[in-house]
Amino acid sequence: MNYYLGLDIGGTFVKGVCMTAEGNLLAEEKCDTGCEHGGAVMCDNIANLCAKLRRKVKGDLNGVGVGCPGMIESVRGVVKFAGNLGLKDYPLGDELARRLGVPVKVTNDANAAALGEARFGAGRSFKNSILVTLGTGVGGGIIIDGKLYEGGCSVGAEIGHMVIERNGDMCTCGRRGCFERYSSASALTRYTKHAMEEDAGSAMWGKYTSQTCTGKTAFEFMDTDRTAKEVVDWYIKYLACGLVNLANIFRPEVIMLGGGVAAQGERLTKPLQAIMDKEIFGGNNYAKVLVVPASLGNSAGAMGAAALCLE
Amino acid sequence: MNYYLGLDIGGTFVKGVCMTAEGNLLAEEKCDTGCEHGGAVMCDNIANLCAKLRRKVKGDLNGVGVGCPGMIESVRGVVKFAGNLGLKDYPLGDELARRLGVPVKVTNDANAAALGEARFGAGRSFKNSILVTLGTGVGGGIIIDGKLYEGGCSVGAEIGHMVIERNGDMCTCGRRGCFERYSSASALTRYTKHAMEEDAGSAMWGKYTSQTCTGKTAFEFMDTDRTAKEVVDWYIKYLACGLVNLANIFRPEVIMLGGGVAAQGERLTKPLQAIMDKEIFGGNNYAKVLVVPASLGNSAGAMGAAALCLE
Repeated sequence: MNYYLGLDIGGTFVKGVCMTAEGNLLAEEKCDTGCEHGGAVMCDNIANLCAKLRRKVKGDLNGVGVGCPGMIESVRGVVKFAGNLGLKDYPLGDELARRLGVPVKVTNDANAAALGEARFGAGRSFKNSILVTLGTGVGGGIIIDGKLYEGGCSVGAEIGHMVIERNGDMCTCGRRGCFERYSSASALTRYTKHAMEEDAGSAMWGKYTSQTCTGKTAFEFMDTDRTAKEVVDWYIKYLACGLVNLANIFRPEVIMLGGGVAAQGERLTKPLQAIMDKEIFGGNNYAKVLVVPASLGNSAGAMGAAALCLE
Repeated sequence: MNYYLGLDIGGTFVKGVCMTAEGNLLAEEKCDTGCEHGGAVMCDNIANLCAKLRRKVKGDLNGVGVGCPGMIESVRGVVKFAGNLGLKDYPLGDELARRLGVPVKVTNDANAAALGEARFGAGRSFKNSILVTLGTGVGGGIIIDGKLYEGGCSVGAEIGHMVIERNGDMCTCGRRGCFERYSSASALTRYTKHAMEEDAGSAMWGKYTSQTCTGKTAFEFMDTDRTAKEVVDWYIKYLACGLVNLANIFRPEVIMLGGGVAAQGERLTKPLQAIMDKEIFGGNNYAKVLVVPASLGNSAGAMGAAALCLE
């Protein structure tokens, strides 16, 4: 049997999967990233992880793919810059290939997740899809005609850094008013905290403080507390604004939402779909764009990384 | 010699060119669109135009391409909706093919112009480019890896309808704060008119009234009049906001500016390039994005339409 390894590098852990071309998971493992000790230690850790995975399965290794945070030059497998891994111009693909004895493909972690969802998850029935991941920031990946679209020099697709509110909140990228400042899970938590502090009578205080509230809090109380409902409505309006922008530019068949917030399911997607249908350019009679939750959870990145070898 | 016909349908005129695959113009003609008399009359007019062009050149007609305003389903050559031509679900490609006796390819006019510039104009040295046309609205076309990217179902690439100022000015598309509301030539004229009305002492009054000012007025006076300079600065800030958004999403090698405003050349592109270099995601050391004026003027659409046959 032919199998593929997919690796999803995070700041703390590396998640590895061993799977078939059809997306059947044969084995899973994880290890410490260890990037605080430098790129070489990280690569040694990943090589050990791969060895472990290979011992668990029988068959032939056909390819290894890696999803890595940061700005990745995927053609050469070079990490141009990854702030939270402390890497700069690091030849990750070559370093891993040398240790593993096989070629290694590398892409940005958000792109890998999008490819995973497109091949094996919520996007598998569609040729054109976008994954929007709502986490600390807003990441995303774009699939055009079944293929991962990384932008020129493979460093585009930075959909979180599209300004939707000129002169708005300061973003880590140096601009103001980026999509991710308003639509990330962190932004939702920030709104919730602020709304609680403004409304001493909110039912949310019965269970949370403005320190312990999370991106789930407002959704939990939206049916019973007006302030919580306002937070959810506000969040959805901003998120919808960015999603309709993406729909007008790419007109994909489906936009998939990933990250913890997406677990809200229809409470999130139903109002988003209503706004999409109303606001999309030229109406939704032709080339409708669906908004759905992603389906692979935190396996999307590793599975998509493996799928890089199937491109 | 093999040649191609390219047609650019406007609200008033249809521009037609006859050219070689290398982009050499052999003949040009134009005719009234005549769409106020319906699609059939328009197609008859276009067929006459094509006959005229063919009489002017010797050789074999190898293909006909059309750029048409509105929402175009290019795979079938159908005009889904074109408000200013009064067409809806009109099989333009088939109607023309029947009259001309050859297959006809159709795309949106902005897409055609982008393909023209990419093949024969300011984008000819680059594989990834975007044309942003600053006219009544903001149109645009996207070239990925040398090919026209029209978005899913060929109705994407509506870059003018990307919200950059949430809850901003009402747009014709029904949303608020779209890029085109701030960065079109019409918007520039509107700012100028407003600024003149607010400043009775502006030097612009020496030559124009708030009724006769155009998108050129503020540029003409920017070196001698503070209010004119403010209008230009304001316009450039909004335009840059949308361009950096597009750069972060597509990371093209070049963004070309078309339409009358682009004739300002470096007065426009130099400050835009400075903002681009400063604000683009991850900096401009890797995968720099150039901002340049388009070079084919109002021939871009017809030439790009002909180039549809070369795709």
